[in-house]
Amino acid sequence: MPSISIRGNDMPSSPIRKLVPIAEEAKARGVDIIHLNIGQPDIQTPAVALEAIKNIDRTVLEYSHSAGMPEYRRKLTQYYKRFDIDVDQEEIMVTTGGSEAFMFAFFCCFNPGDEIIIPEPFYANYSGIATAAGINIKPITSSFEDGFALPPMAEFEKLITTKTKGIFICNPNNPTGYLYSTEELNHLRDIVLEHDLYLLSDEVYREFCYDDCKHFSALNLEGLENNVVLIDSVSKRYSECGIRIGTLVSRNKEVIDSAMKFAQARLSPPLLGQIAACASIDASQEYTDSVHKEYYERRNILVEGLNKIPGVKSMKPKGAFYTMAKLPVKDSDDFCQWILRDFSYDNQTLMMAPGSGFYSSRYLGNDEVRIAYVLNQTDLKKALVILEKALEAYPGRLI
Amino acid sequence: MPSISIRGNDMPSSPIRKLVPIAEEAKARGVDIIHLNIGQPDIQTPAVALEAIKNIDRTVLEYSHSAGMPEYRRKLTQYYKRFDIDVDQEEIMVTTGGSEAFMFAFFCCFNPGDEIIIPEPFYANYSGIATAAGINIKPITSSFEDGFALPPMAEFEKLITTKTKGIFICNPNNPTGYLYSTEELNHLRDIVLEHDLYLLSDEVYREFCYDDCKHFSALNLEGLENNVVLIDSVSKRYSECGIRIGTLVSRNKEVIDSAMKFAQARLSPPLLGQIAACASIDASQEYTDSVHKEYYERRNILVEGLNKIPGVKSMKPKGAFYTMAKLPVKDSDDFCQWILRDFSYDNQTLMMAPGSGFYSSRYLGNDEVRIAYVLNQTDLKKALVILEKALEAYPGRLI
Repeated sequence: MPSISIRGNDMPSSPIRKLVPIAEEAKARGVDIIHLNIGQPDIQTPAVALEAIKNIDRTVLEYSHSAGMPEYRRKLTQYYKRFDIDVDQEEIMVTTGGSEAFMFAFFCCFNPGDEIIIPEPFYANYSGIATAAGINIKPITSSFEDGFALPPMAEFEKLITTKTKGIFICNPNNPTGYLYSTEELNHLRDIVLEHDLYLLSDEVYREFCYDDCKHFSALNLEGLENNVVLIDSVSKRYSECGIRIGTLVSRNKEVIDSAMKFAQARLSPPLLGQIAACASIDASQEYTDSVHKEYYERRNILVEGLNKIPGVKSMKPKGAFYTMAKLPVKDSDDFCQWILRDFSYDNQTLMMAPGSGFYSSRYLGNDEVRIAYVLNQTDLKKALVILEKALEAYPGRLI
Repeated sequence: MPSISIRGNDMPSSPIRKLVPIAEEAKARGVDIIHLNIGQPDIQTPAVALEAIKNIDRTVLEYSHSAGMPEYRRKLTQYYKRFDIDVDQEEIMVTTGGSEAFMFAFFCCFNPGDEIIIPEPFYANYSGIATAAGINIKPITSSFEDGFALPPMAEFEKLITTKTKGIFICNPNNPTGYLYSTEELNHLRDIVLEHDLYLLSDEVYREFCYDDCKHFSALNLEGLENNVVLIDSVSKRYSECGIRIGTLVSRNKEVIDSAMKFAQARLSPPLLGQIAACASIDASQEYTDSVHKEYYERRNILVEGLNKIPGVKSMKPKGAFYTMAKLPVKDSDDFCQWILRDFSYDNQTLMMAPGSGFYSSRYLGNDEVRIAYVLNQTDLKKALVILEKALEAYPGRLI
């Protein structure tokens, strides 16, 4: 029997993999599970996107251009202009979700064995894609106590070796909700230039910034035209995660030319998804405003509620729709399993993503969970009650 | 300025990359181009697929399961049963096109530096995906004179080293149209077992076999349960290339478990495409029969027509919808450029894929072109006239 490859064996499992069968058992017992673990919003997809799909007038669902439909790429330039990001159509490549944009960026920019620095906690799937591409992630720890701010530049300097080829940030951040300031990004700019690195910036939550905070794109960092690769996706922006449409944007023509070869090898991004994504750019201001307001209110309910639970702490994130909450437990992996297996309140319980899955360093995040506020306010309020009751009942609770 | 990665630089360009700007110039001069170069059929997508898309009743286009929608995977088991392939739902993973199924198979089965043997000429994108995954392709040449039959097993044995970890076949074959016999596949079986190799089998053209020939799936080779990985796609089967839905099928549970981790890292295959693909399984027998009849007639027109042109030769392929034709030229790259740049007949000309792009060995395929019969019979007949006139006028024509 032939063996599985080393990278196949090394691929990390999802942070909630252990929880899935336990949740299945809970469901089988008739317990209702409130999912705080996932980034799948309940927000409606814009009506214009659904209409575009319902009204397709094609009789052959043919390949699109490998770099994406010209019409969609054109409209994306207008979309980016709304956020003061000035890019040409030729600098935009449509990808199969944000995941493929990461993958192409990793393939084009890094050799197997190269190192990239990523502030942790970070989106767990980065590890998987890095493993697939043979890239080594060097984590730089941001801490709850500092509100998950970008670690000081001196800490970055310490990690840079001859193998370091890039820095990867997610802004606003999944899982912390942290929004990097222009000042922080300018510090990053200096270090990127000094060491001739790529700066990969995942900005899929750009539109979800709160408290009048403004998002500053890495693409607008001066002097980094050849260094910045933007990763983007419509999944969260328009609540259309399933259509698998992302983008890779760079002003570095060599990166785009190289990415184009990987794009040609997989022929084309999804046609139907592009039709939906293209129409979504015309979603009304009313839609955008109402989604923003909804997440803003959910954040307030969640974070204020969390901080009222004895022993629980959460920063008030300025962006995205997640928070990394600190719980009065020693091992949140155990707590997340226990709450599904051994606890329910009014026949309901919670599924949360244990913090450790978002850290590459060992022994970190053990008292943290990532909570996504992608559920309606009623469910969020119920979840807060369940969490409070569960922590009261949990045998492993710290005082 | 940071540099592009080695694999980014090594990625092969599309075999028609040089032709694209020349074709653009021809179009700008008002010349109409008949595309014999591409695998994008003009056949209509089944009405049931288009209806399923038009009738979606969802309001959130959410992620599907990483391994694909359970309903679609269930229906796929029924689809495969029609072809006497007996597989469980758990042995099927839905992928983003056949390309992603290749990619996952390469990632799971092979380490960077491993070698896989592929009969050449082969589908050009295999090279790109192998380069992305760091796998070395060792070509084994099948020849026009032998009708592109599988080379003798002794030739395979010669290529096997300690680094050889797999054999990859495409059956029926793109670009040759060759359909492997059960006998040939049984020979392959022996060699795969002897050397403990993976056998990757791309069977996307399964339904396009002619002259009452029957397709034999690698999944039905006895004793290879742990060795065979099937690559499949609905792109050509239902003329829905743009929806990007493929499958990876294996009875080797370790392969499926490993592929699942790569699948989770990219979250989910396209939802809308899965809805279309799932509905397509219910396409009427009338649809399937009419598509088959149409390709059969096109093949006959094309191949008989090619063999009537002085100096041109084509085998009569038993499957798929391509043929590798021999032309009376020394350099088909040059001829394919010349016909676009310097020739037209009744203001029309041809775009064909030069043969060399389908060979990994140097200096092969220089007098061959791949012609896809994915156009209507009228256009195919016109194309034959243009090819004959062009060969008469071509300065580089061999006697």
